[in-house]
Amino acid sequence: MKKEELVQQIKAKESYLCVGLDSDIDKLPHHLLKESDPIFEFNKQIIDATIDYAVAYKPNLAFYESQGAKGWESLAKTMEYIPPEIFTIADAKRGDIGNTSRHYARAFFEQLNFDAITLSPYMGQDAIAPYLSYEDKWAIVLGLTSNESSIDFEQLLVYDDSNFFNIVPQRLYEVVIQKSLEWENNERIMYVVGATKASELRSIRQLVPQHFLLVPGVGTQGGSLEEVSSNGMNSDCGLLVNSSRGIIFAGNDENFASAAGSKASTMQDEMKVYLDKYCK
Amino acid sequence: MKKEELVQQIKAKESYLCVGLDSDIDKLPHHLLKESDPIFEFNKQIIDATIDYAVAYKPNLAFYESQGAKGWESLAKTMEYIPPEIFTIADAKRGDIGNTSRHYARAFFEQLNFDAITLSPYMGQDAIAPYLSYEDKWAIVLGLTSNESSIDFEQLLVYDDSNFFNIVPQRLYEVVIQKSLEWENNERIMYVVGATKASELRSIRQLVPQHFLLVPGVGTQGGSLEEVSSNGMNSDCGLLVNSSRGIIFAGNDENFASAAGSKASTMQDEMKVYLDKYCK
Repeated sequence: MKKEELVQQIKAKESYLCVGLDSDIDKLPHHLLKESDPIFEFNKQIIDATIDYAVAYKPNLAFYESQGAKGWESLAKTMEYIPPEIFTIADAKRGDIGNTSRHYARAFFEQLNFDAITLSPYMGQDAIAPYLSYEDKWAIVLGLTSNESSIDFEQLLVYDDSNFFNIVPQRLYEVVIQKSLEWENNERIMYVVGATKASELRSIRQLVPQHFLLVPGVGTQGGSLEEVSSNGMNSDCGLLVNSSRGIIFAGNDENFASAAGSKASTMQDEMKVYLDKYCK
Repeated sequence: MKKEELVQQIKAKESYLCVGLDSDIDKLPHHLLKESDPIFEFNKQIIDATIDYAVAYKPNLAFYESQGAKGWESLAKTMEYIPPEIFTIADAKRGDIGNTSRHYARAFFEQLNFDAITLSPYMGQDAIAPYLSYEDKWAIVLGLTSNESSIDFEQLLVYDDSNFFNIVPQRLYEVVIQKSLEWENNERIMYVVGATKASELRSIRQLVPQHFLLVPGVGTQGGSLEEVSSNGMNSDCGLLVNSSRGIIFAGNDENFASAAGSKASTMQDEMKVYLDKYCK
């Protein structure tokens, strides 16, 4: 999907909501377990109930891979079910190099037809470049995540001694973002930025004024939607805010889909206000 | 698998060879493509031809995922085919947190019954801990990789300001290794260390005298087996040296399996010498 198409979708729906399809078989409503493909049936009903309020869906691969080949089929059917105007993200956090990455890219971009994939930058440019060669596809690189142990490495103080003028230490995630801007086709990068601290979001937005940020950590993981929006938005919106469990497991009986729809609708109501207020 | 069992296997076979099953469908011998499951048929014959010389097999997930659900089945059949006394590594380079990681652990450790999985440390301890709770299973954490862009982030100079006494900057990969030694069950960690520079291997061995190192980058990617062995070995051997394409694609006609077996046998001959010389 082209950036303009995503932006147009955001403006038309007045929403930058991404629904995380973390469709954990252990948490599905019991009555679905008698279906031949409970995960797909669950996703289908969640998508039907939330599609008016969401611009993106993000299946988390772990919940499909833990079901083996059958899980892979649930994922493929889910991808076929999502209409083409919706942005789709494979939350796969892959990070490997060369021919290996090209095969992952083929799996997610060509076969499953995702618009984007989340990636770990640890191994450097080699781990991201193969995905950036696809036109109208997106590499969503881990920047600063919202988990507690992001202090272990992401937030370490780093001296980039390859750059003589960089004498001020930066946090590792800042160096990741900054260095990625030198890579070919970097305009096809988005960044994962956890919604834990407003000040960090603000400084990341300064580093990448034009790029989209994928923000998890709003909702069940804490983090205020207004703070995220006021600090992270740019004139294209520039944000995809993800909610997974807070929406998809809002209910756990026959009414799970309408409970999910109602949560998504509430978030979209709020997003409409922030788009008016901060998207400029 | 317990460490003692792996060490016993290494001593019995006089080998620390890991064969990488990077079974790229595009590179398989043509005559296999008429089989109903060419990748499994290829793996089966490669395993039969190399099992006397190898202590471990390492399927690279990308080459299975790029075949969709069918690829997942080829992988499951391959895992069933490998005898239980052989160490198996899912080269998946996963890196996610909490419930997501627990689902990946379930997929690879419980369903596919791998002994080990490769993991990216970017998100910190949260991304590794769920795998360490499995007894007799192994988390193989990316340390220093052998690709060119390992200089982008892995080799950056880091000041660990959480540790007052750490006033000397270290490379990021050294901090990753050092910090991981503080984690619960860290004795179940191995490290990926690229075989590019002897001096780096030596200093990593000093950081983790007891842990196993998984060393790719010998063979087609360059790197001398003797240098790796003399600098990396400890009294348990402590090394798994991987070769993928150099073995599995040694031939590409009807004789591919015997070509692979002959390459593996040559490596094992060399390894026998280095075990005598350096494993003390």
